Amino acid sequence: MIRISQRGVQMPASPIRKLVPYAEAAKQRGITVYHLNIGQPDIETPPAIMQAVKDMDMPILEYSHSAGNESYRKKLVQYYKRVGVAVTHEQVMITTGGSEAILFAFFACLDAGDEVIIPEPFYANYNGFACEAGVTVVPIPSTIETGFALPAIEDFERVITDRTRAILICNPNNPTGYVYSREEIEALGVICKKHQLYLFSDEAYREFRYTEDDYISALQLSGVDDNVVLLDTISKRYSACGARIGALVTKNKEVYAAALKFGQARLSPPGLAQIMGEAAVDLPPDYFAATKEEYESRRNLLVQRLNAMEGVFCPNPGGAFYAIAKLPIDDCDRFCQWLLESFEYKKQTVMLAPATGFYATPGLGKNEVRFAYVLNREAIAAAMDCLEQALKVYPGQTA
Amino acid sequence: MIRISQRGVQMPASPIRKLVPYAEAAKQRGITVYHLNIGQPDIETPPAIMQAVKDMDMPILEYSHSAGNESYRKKLVQYYKRVGVAVTHEQVMITTGGSEAILFAFFACLDAGDEVIIPEPFYANYNGFACEAGVTVVPIPSTIETGFALPAIEDFERVITDRTRAILICNPNNPTGYVYSREEIEALGVICKKHQLYLFSDEAYREFRYTEDDYISALQLSGVDDNVVLLDTISKRYSACGARIGALVTKNKEVYAAALKFGQARLSPPGLAQIMGEAAVDLPPDYFAATKEEYESRRNLLVQRLNAMEGVFCPNPGGAFYAIAKLPIDDCDRFCQWLLESFEYKKQTVMLAPATGFYATPGLGKNEVRFAYVLNREAIAAAMDCLEQALKVYPGQTA
Repeated sequence: MIRISQRGVQMPASPIRKLVPYAEAAKQRGITVYHLNIGQPDIETPPAIMQAVKDMDMPILEYSHSAGNESYRKKLVQYYKRVGVAVTHEQVMITTGGSEAILFAFFACLDAGDEVIIPEPFYANYNGFACEAGVTVVPIPSTIETGFALPAIEDFERVITDRTRAILICNPNNPTGYVYSREEIEALGVICKKHQLYLFSDEAYREFRYTEDDYISALQLSGVDDNVVLLDTISKRYSACGARIGALVTKNKEVYAAALKFGQARLSPPGLAQIMGEAAVDLPPDYFAATKEEYESRRNLLVQRLNAMEGVFCPNPGGAFYAIAKLPIDDCDRFCQWLLESFEYKKQTVMLAPATGFYATPGLGKNEVRFAYVLNREAIAAAMDCLEQALKVYPGQTA
Repeated sequence: MIRISQRGVQMPASPIRKLVPYAEAAKQRGITVYHLNIGQPDIETPPAIMQAVKDMDMPILEYSHSAGNESYRKKLVQYYKRVGVAVTHEQVMITTGGSEAILFAFFACLDAGDEVIIPEPFYANYNGFACEAGVTVVPIPSTIETGFALPAIEDFERVITDRTRAILICNPNNPTGYVYSREEIEALGVICKKHQLYLFSDEAYREFRYTEDDYISALQLSGVDDNVVLLDTISKRYSACGARIGALVTKNKEVYAAALKFGQARLSPPGLAQIMGEAAVDLPPDYFAATKEEYESRRNLLVQRLNAMEGVFCPNPGGAFYAIAKLPIDDCDRFCQWLLESFEYKKQTVMLAPATGFYATPGLGKNEVRFAYVLNREAIAAAMDCLEQALKVYPGQTA
């Protein structure tokens, strides 16, 4: 019998996906399932950027430049300038989604066996890309008590070894919604410079911040131009997850040149969706205002409803469209499955993401769940009604 | 100073790209450069499949299924049935170009340090994906004298070690244009079964065959269902290189499940281009007839012109849109650069791909070049005029 690779065996399956059959079975039973489990926004993709694709006039859909169309990269320079990040188009490489930006950063900066420190809970697919690149993820816990603030710098220093090559953050954070402060980002810059580590900064949710607090991109740090690699995507920003267009941005020429070699092997990023990404830079400035307002009102509703429930604690997240709450339950994996398998309230239930999938340290997050507030307020309210009832009857309650 | 990864250092740069600055400089000097160096067809992308994208009606461009839209996979089942390959949609995974299919096959089937045997000359980007996966490419030479037929089975057996996990072929072949016969494919099936190796079959050029000889897909072999992984793409088939839509097809459930985990990490293949791929299956049956006729007439012209030149030998390739010729030159890298840097004929020159880039064994292919007949007959004729003159005056000629 022919065997698959050990890498194929060890590659983590998506932690949410194991719940999908239970959600499907619930729907089969005629139950409405509110999907707060995945970051697929219900916000309309801006019609103007869809129209840009429809208006294309290309007799041949050719390979683009491996770094992406120059016209798009030049547009992105304008976009970054507007958000306070000064880069040239030769520092911007278009990738196939933010996913590929992460993978290329790992490939270009880390060898198999090297270590990347990531505050946990973190975006679960980082594990997958680490597996693909043979890289070891070293988690350091952030906690719900601090609202998932950056762990103390001493916590980072404690786990740095001679194989440590990078720190990876997501800011605003998925899954916690936490927005790192200027001070926190600056502290990361200092430690990366001191230990000659890369700072990978995933800023997919940059626009979705609901605080007046000072925010800086890692690319705005000074003195660490060679250390910072920005990982970006249009997926959430323009509700265009299926486009698969992202970007790797770095002022480090060697990293860029290496990333470009990985990009050349796969020839080019998707051509049609680059048209969309380029058009998105020309959306009116108030585009984000309406979207942000919508997300903020959802967050407010979600967090208020959660904290009003007995034994539930949800810090108020400053950004993205996620929140993690602590529930009075024994085991979030069991609870989330039970919600789909054994619970209903007025023929409805809710699908949530067990927080254990976002922690690398076994045992952490067992009584936490992640909410993606990607449904409208009415749906969120109905989902909260379900959750409130569920917590009263769940057999594994601890409150 | 922060260092990039060894993987980033070792990642091969595209062998053709080093010539690009010389081509650009030639154009700056007002010289017309005929690009026979890269497989970017000049054939129009079928307007009907472009129109399918323009006709899309989706309020939100969401993530698709990680294996690709089910509707598209079901369509592809029809396509494969038409070409004599019986598969189900659960054996088809849509990938981001053929590139990702290759990478996922490596990831799912081979571990770092494992070996894949590839007849050389071969598609240079296989080296890149092997580097990404930490896999060692073991080349075995095919030769221009046999028209680049499959090396003898003994040649494969001679290099099989306990780390050998797969054989990779491209059929019809890039860069040679050779079409493997039924007997050759069956012989590969036998050896893969005997040694429990995967047979990766890259069939990107399936439709472009100009012989009446019997052709089989590796997926038509019997008794090796668990060994065969088909690597496919719409890039060349429908002149849609920029779409970045391919497929990994296998009847091996474990390989499929592992590949899907790699697919889940990157969430989904490009959404807009999947519409295009799905529409392509509904193109009229005569679509390939006209394209094939065009390519065949180009091939005939190219091969006839080449073999009429003093000291030149070009086997008549049975498929794809490539040919490799032996030229009376000392060094193809030097010659191809010289064509761009120091030669012109009627203000024109030709850009070719040095064959050395397609061999892994140092020293092989030094007097060979690859032609991609992706330009019309007029351009090919003009390019051949250039080449004919060039060979008369090239300082490193050996004839």
